[in-house]
Amino acid sequence: MKFEIVARDPHSRARAGLLHTPHGTIETPAFIGVATQGTIKGVTVEQLEATGLQMLIANTYHLYLRPGDELVREAGGLHRFMGWNGPLMTDSGGFQVFSLGAAFGKNLTKVAHEDIEQAKDERRPSVYDPDILTQHGRLAVIDEEGVTFTSHLDGSLHRFTPERSIEIQHNLGADIIVAFDECTAATADWQYQKEAMERTHRWAERSLKAHRRNIEANRAQALFGVVQGGRFEDLRRESAHVLSSMNFDGFCIGGSYVKEDLDTAVGWVCEELPEDKPRHLLGIGEPEDLVNGIEKGVDLFDCVQPTRLARTGTVYGPKGMKMNLLNEQFRRDFSPIDTDCGCPICAGVEGKGGYSRAYLAHLFHAREMLGATLASVHNLYYLVNLVTVERMRIRNNSKHESSPTPNT
Amino acid sequence: MKFEIVARDPHSRARAGLLHTPHGTIETPAFIGVATQGTIKGVTVEQLEATGLQMLIANTYHLYLRPGDELVREAGGLHRFMGWNGPLMTDSGGFQVFSLGAAFGKNLTKVAHEDIEQAKDERRPSVYDPDILTQHGRLAVIDEEGVTFTSHLDGSLHRFTPERSIEIQHNLGADIIVAFDECTAATADWQYQKEAMERTHRWAERSLKAHRRNIEANRAQALFGVVQGGRFEDLRRESAHVLSSMNFDGFCIGGSYVKEDLDTAVGWVCEELPEDKPRHLLGIGEPEDLVNGIEKGVDLFDCVQPTRLARTGTVYGPKGMKMNLLNEQFRRDFSPIDTDCGCPICAGVEGKGGYSRAYLAHLFHAREMLGATLASVHNLYYLVNLVTVERMRIRNNSKHESSPTPNT
Repeated sequence: MKFEIVARDPHSRARAGLLHTPHGTIETPAFIGVATQGTIKGVTVEQLEATGLQMLIANTYHLYLRPGDELVREAGGLHRFMGWNGPLMTDSGGFQVFSLGAAFGKNLTKVAHEDIEQAKDERRPSVYDPDILTQHGRLAVIDEEGVTFTSHLDGSLHRFTPERSIEIQHNLGADIIVAFDECTAATADWQYQKEAMERTHRWAERSLKAHRRNIEANRAQALFGVVQGGRFEDLRRESAHVLSSMNFDGFCIGGSYVKEDLDTAVGWVCEELPEDKPRHLLGIGEPEDLVNGIEKGVDLFDCVQPTRLARTGTVYGPKGMKMNLLNEQFRRDFSPIDTDCGCPICAGVEGKGGYSRAYLAHLFHAREMLGATLASVHNLYYLVNLVTVERMRIRNNSKHESSPTPNT
Repeated sequence: MKFEIVARDPHSRARAGLLHTPHGTIETPAFIGVATQGTIKGVTVEQLEATGLQMLIANTYHLYLRPGDELVREAGGLHRFMGWNGPLMTDSGGFQVFSLGAAFGKNLTKVAHEDIEQAKDERRPSVYDPDILTQHGRLAVIDEEGVTFTSHLDGSLHRFTPERSIEIQHNLGADIIVAFDECTAATADWQYQKEAMERTHRWAERSLKAHRRNIEANRAQALFGVVQGGRFEDLRRESAHVLSSMNFDGFCIGGSYVKEDLDTAVGWVCEELPEDKPRHLLGIGEPEDLVNGIEKGVDLFDCVQPTRLARTGTVYGPKGMKMNLLNEQFRRDFSPIDTDCGCPICAGVEGKGGYSRAYLAHLFHAREMLGATLASVHNLYYLVNLVTVERMRIRNNSKHESSPTPNT
């Protein structure tokens, strides 16, 4: 994987780049579609291509549980399995292990590694024991080695370590994979964040080592590290600094959830990260957050928001205002979602007109699944296009004004 | 609308034709897709085109209730509303009024027209009264004028007459519309079938009159009559004969539900109907029934079966054998549904390979709606292609053997 910066915005830290992967080049900044279980819900690969999406991110936790990473490897890898020939990314599974399993710390236990080893040696029930987990109502247990967690599908017990996460991601075979991290709630206190961050750094080293050891995977797949540290400036800067010193191909920024994190945590991290490597802000996708993130120096974004909203009938209308198509006013509204939108749903394809708000409203009122599909295509196109406009703006500003790179 | 027969099979009553409509020409025999609520569930218009479907049939009862036929008219008609620019048909609503409302006679009351008129005159509660309907647990009441029925959506009371059904179908604006008929259970006795059939004939006359009265609709829309008569040869022949004497543009064959009806009822009817007008067998779509129906002289078929099966994970496999993708054996089966199938799902598109059974199985196991979409496209393609092969066979047989038209 190679990353080139081709333009810098003289007014902000924004930059435009080219990220070359074995399955094609991504123009950055870019919005990435979330194909959790190896599909963006209800949208075909051809429809995704029509939205202008350049890359998809699939979910390691979900695909490990179902259909299984070994099965995906047998199928020839995730690209071939799901029929997406463009660039593809998988996350580390960390976020889901903690959020689906542990509800952000509420049902999560941290234990000292030695306690577990001792329990094993003494052949007495340990925290690994599903009965013990169930008995304590806990869904995930962290130790220094990794995380033991219960499946959200059937309650069965599983264990991820950094090495295991990387091995699973090798089986899935995406172009970009992510180091296993301990994902914290943004609101956790300094002490909790510091411990989690330091463990994340140790896991980052181990992820890197596990990846570099696999010669073939190392050649085909790039590895990103994950910056943590919650909402504390000292931790965020430290995390970015420590990870920068490791030999990652790029970086993810984890643990950000709301608008406020953009100006603080994301800004701090981007100031510390090396200029010449790509930065991916995990799970952020509100239109204003994308614009803000780009200005802070973020290159890649992913978020389930556009498709999750779409499935409930909520679409980005004129000027990006959200509108719910189930509202009465849209029943007889024969205009497209947004007359200025060039997406296949609003503008139509091959000389055919687009769909009206009234038709989409009808589909949602009638609980017809086509509504979710059409609204998803529109919402994805909207975000992709919004980021494309920002990218063009950076390139144009860079051309028309000669200004030094802002202070770093 | 113009119908030309271009070839006849010397070995059966099968014929190949061209049905010219204002929205394009249909090559017959043809399988027609069922877009009940103005969409084939989960499949876009572009995907429908890729299956080779030439015409869709939408549902008058459903669209009348939601979003309303007036609204569709305001939208510029159903073609424009749903984005389908090809030939389009609507049924009369009769089948749904009786089957959704009345569960085939079980909750259905027939009353003498005079009784109702008298009740109205005396201003006393009549069978039209929703309280009375509810009180009797009846969901549809037939009288000579029409049918009073309750909506399956909200239990509200509605009334269809032949004139009203035609008016609704004018508002929807399909290329082919259907006369309002009394749809019976195939198992009903002779006396019941005879009464229903005779009423259907009277309603056919009224439908025809209502249609011809509307100059504009009459020019743009063709009207088909519906042959009824259950499983009784005398009634079926009589019904076909009586309707043939009316000035319909084509004929539907109603009230057939199982394989056995093909050899009996459908055969009798096709022998009586005029040779020069198209024949549509309503609601039949098992592969062997299509082949059999074509041999009997049927030109058009529609059925929800391929898409209903698809949504449950059942697809037409090699040699048309049904297979359920949720079976364990398909979890690691990396071949396409059918290696001989040329559909976008099996053979892929634009140089991309198709999807494997394993991927489709994963989508169904994971309850991902994309599974239903992909399986629907395959199943529709399978039936369309099966009928296309029959059509080519008729044309080839007709060319290569000169034989008189079989006895009529």
